[in-house]
Amino acid sequence: MRIAVDAMGGDHAPDEVVRGALLYRSEGRGAELTLVGREEVLRRALGTAPREGISVADARDVVAMDEHPSAALRRRPDTSIAVATALVKRGEADAVVSAGNTGATMAAALLVLGRIPGIDRPALCGMLPTTAKKPTCLLDAGATMDADENNLLQYARMATRFMEGVHGVERPTVGLINVGEEPEKGTRLALAAHALLSGAEDVTFYGNIEGRDVMRGITDIVLCDGFVGNVLIKGLEGTVDVFRDGIRNDIFGGILGKIAYVFASVGVRRLRARLDYGPYVSAPLLGVNGVSVVTHGRADASMMRHAIAIAERAVASGLVAKIGAQAAAPR
Amino acid sequence: MRIAVDAMGGDHAPDEVVRGALLYRSEGRGAELTLVGREEVLRRALGTAPREGISVADARDVVAMDEHPSAALRRRPDTSIAVATALVKRGEADAVVSAGNTGATMAAALLVLGRIPGIDRPALCGMLPTTAKKPTCLLDAGATMDADENNLLQYARMATRFMEGVHGVERPTVGLINVGEEPEKGTRLALAAHALLSGAEDVTFYGNIEGRDVMRGITDIVLCDGFVGNVLIKGLEGTVDVFRDGIRNDIFGGILGKIAYVFASVGVRRLRARLDYGPYVSAPLLGVNGVSVVTHGRADASMMRHAIAIAERAVASGLVAKIGAQAAAPR
Repeated sequence: MRIAVDAMGGDHAPDEVVRGALLYRSEGRGAELTLVGREEVLRRALGTAPREGISVADARDVVAMDEHPSAALRRRPDTSIAVATALVKRGEADAVVSAGNTGATMAAALLVLGRIPGIDRPALCGMLPTTAKKPTCLLDAGATMDADENNLLQYARMATRFMEGVHGVERPTVGLINVGEEPEKGTRLALAAHALLSGAEDVTFYGNIEGRDVMRGITDIVLCDGFVGNVLIKGLEGTVDVFRDGIRNDIFGGILGKIAYVFASVGVRRLRARLDYGPYVSAPLLGVNGVSVVTHGRADASMMRHAIAIAERAVASGLVAKIGAQAAAPR
Repeated sequence: MRIAVDAMGGDHAPDEVVRGALLYRSEGRGAELTLVGREEVLRRALGTAPREGISVADARDVVAMDEHPSAALRRRPDTSIAVATALVKRGEADAVVSAGNTGATMAAALLVLGRIPGIDRPALCGMLPTTAKKPTCLLDAGATMDADENNLLQYARMATRFMEGVHGVERPTVGLINVGEEPEKGTRLALAAHALLSGAEDVTFYGNIEGRDVMRGITDIVLCDGFVGNVLIKGLEGTVDVFRDGIRNDIFGGILGKIAYVFASVGVRRLRARLDYGPYVSAPLLGVNGVSVVTHGRADASMMRHAIAIAERAVASGLVAKIGAQAAAPR
């Protein structure tokens, strides 16, 4: 197995990406890696480290984090994400991993790999920490605008295969985001999706859940359209940032706060560990015809290592083929 | 001025509601109050406290927090929220305030007071704390499903009048919730709303904002449809709860944590004060033909006092008439 890693994408590229690749390989994991980016920069970052199983593929350009994705891809064919995704298309790699511009990773996957036959629209997973001590998979986090109920049903099926194959969850439950628990609540889309999911035999439908249930981990999968998912996941992230700052500055700032921290540091680490999404934030873009794993722009070496491991598991579990078989199944 | 208070609504009714009413009156505030609920219960709760300017109106029934609102109102005419809202309709009170079942408060307002002529759909405000040290008004928090762009424009106009008249904000800015800042982002609804708001001369349109911007207080008003608003506000609330528990149990639980708290208590109070929404969580239901203020089900006496003060300011500023005049203005 070979995984192409976009070595120029993300806030801490290329250094943390390269370190993540070395970390992954140092654990004796299965896949060989191809780092994609400016060759001289990557060779320098690799230095004299043992790099068995790591090769470099040259790409001269990069899509910036705040750049308009499809315009960038159209105008500049030699970006690291385009080159890395093309390796998968040509069969020279089995998966691509990127911490770069999410829109560009999605656009490259759609343009180069295309959709799985039978899947109408792709979906992006947001993997979230919960107080139930297991991650939840929220989708769609923003790949598709104006989804309909049939798209939502396809998302539920794809996420079910993903949570089974990659996270080892048996019969993962699916909660539909809504404004109340009762089946008669919500928009026309929510009502139609509820009816469709209730009748789907290949999905373990829990029913409606509300915004406050997401971080409680009530279901393994949180289902919503890409607009709601994007707004919600960014809203949660913003709130987490507010509290992170508040704990650091309000509670443990100042002299008394610094004394308090001496006694509280174990507890702070406990809370941080409980809400740490590093090990599972990465997820494949579901519905595209190949494994394309998106991880957080803030990814450090440890998160990159995890992202590569997620790609490895997606390939090993035959995720794309399973989604394709399910999409093609007669109903 | 007289304000009808639903004394049976909310998690801590009637005691905290009655205490909130007494608190409000003890400050020498302008409005007289009518507490609505089981007379003997309220007289007992009032006890021998000085109650000048506080009267009691009897209502034998109450809508439970988890009850289906419109069914309850249809079947049982003598609920405290229905009786309190009817006082406004008959001109015996100028506003109604409730910490009870939000759906029931909305349904009563719509059924009994009706809509302001020219306003097609009502909107519920969620008042949120921000790190910018000023509250932001998020609407619609769930009053209307399947809103269109014209509804959103009406919400923006109503919220502008509300923030001007009740919160004293000059030219309040309106941010449209979207998946990115660029005007070409989002669903069909978001695109249409962006175009409409850009051309509206009576709204200070900031442009698109994202989920993470809400708690940063980038705009005075956060605009979205009722489905997105409800999911987002409950999601934020859920995250705040997760952190509240985490700070209490993970950081300051255990023996070391308790020692830490001795030094950190000032900081914890600082953070709590910064994110305390008590003083402004209450907001009128916008678009109904009368002042109907909704506050949080968790409201204590202090929040009830604030809710009554918000109702007083809404009445004093002529909010309903101003919204009506704007809705009737030729364009």
